[in-house]
Amino acid sequence: MSSFSPIHIDNPDWIDLLVDWDRHYVSDENKMRLAIALSRENVLRGTGGPFGAAIFDTHFGTLVAVGVNSVVRLNNCTLHSEMVAIMMAQARLGCFTLREKNASTYELVTSCEPCAMCLGAILWSGVRRVVCGAYRDDARHLGFEEGPVFPESHAYLKARGVEIVYGVQRDAATAVLELYRLKGGLIYNG
Amino acid sequence: MSSFSPIHIDNPDWIDLLVDWDRHYVSDENKMRLAIALSRENVLRGTGGPFGAAIFDTHFGTLVAVGVNSVVRLNNCTLHSEMVAIMMAQARLGCFTLREKNASTYELVTSCEPCAMCLGAILWSGVRRVVCGAYRDDARHLGFEEGPVFPESHAYLKARGVEIVYGVQRDAATAVLELYRLKGGLIYNG
Repeated sequence: MSSFSPIHIDNPDWIDLLVDWDRHYVSDENKMRLAIALSRENVLRGTGGPFGAAIFDTHFGTLVAVGVNSVVRLNNCTLHSEMVAIMMAQARLGCFTLREKNASTYELVTSCEPCAMCLGAILWSGVRRVVCGAYRDDARHLGFEEGPVFPESHAYLKARGVEIVYGVQRDAATAVLELYRLKGGLIYNG
Repeated sequence: MSSFSPIHIDNPDWIDLLVDWDRHYVSDENKMRLAIALSRENVLRGTGGPFGAAIFDTHFGTLVAVGVNSVVRLNNCTLHSEMVAIMMAQARLGCFTLREKNASTYELVTSCEPCAMCLGAILWSGVRRVVCGAYRDDARHLGFEEGPVFPESHAYLKARGVEIVYGVQRDAATAVLELYRLKGGLIYNG
């Protein structure tokens, strides 16, 4: 037996139907609307869990990359929406960190508070700001585990210069979690 | 602008020169020797950070997948050796969890204690056992950050049935960290 074929990671085909790549996003609410729209479409199209994320250039409000939960579609437990967005952004910029790349800073907007894995990745990613929709407890209520995240985990990131904003459009984000439950969506890490 | 090309994730070409895929591994020490050999070769070949990992079928001692740190090589901050090994194992088995797949259980052997991101991914991966070489403090001593990992983080995994073994061949694993330092290796998340 030899080594394996490369793993391919991509977003579903419908992404380009939903995303206007040329738009400028001027508020957390606008940015969050996109993240939630991604999470909703992922549920409606049956392409994954009820989570979406996007990375923006903080200064210009331009969209750099998006991600939707792809765990089941791509048989890969690491592919939470935040992870996909981070990978896509770094591939696009050709760098393993988004920290003050081209004199810009970057922010991650996610439809739900990040799990333990994603919180770690956020620290490594170099984004300077995180905007969250639904709370961790909203996802837990649905049966999704969030892993070893503690109040100190968030404090740890903040102490290293990562601003975290919570509960932006929480109701709209939580409605997508509820939609997933109603459709009998798989709780792949419960 | 349209959506992006898929991201390709693979191990370096030299992997098949180092790894005997047909061998059975009968002890933690044997398994750790492979993880450390991967970490060392990654440094010597200049293909990444000083970290290697492998996933084994616990019952048969067969090798399922390996990973080496690929953060800089592939411009992707998420590609710690443990993450690559988990992705490769799940791609090979065609499933987003390794939990009691084909009535087998799986274990991850890593040349260094996992960071916050990898600890989270380990929980999602479905491996039931983790064997670590160097301690977190050994990596920190080199300048590598480990992120928001607390004693409760390990307790959290243990409470969910993930056994964690520490310090197997710590000296040999730490020697590779030292080798990386001597070669002036990049601390990509310092």
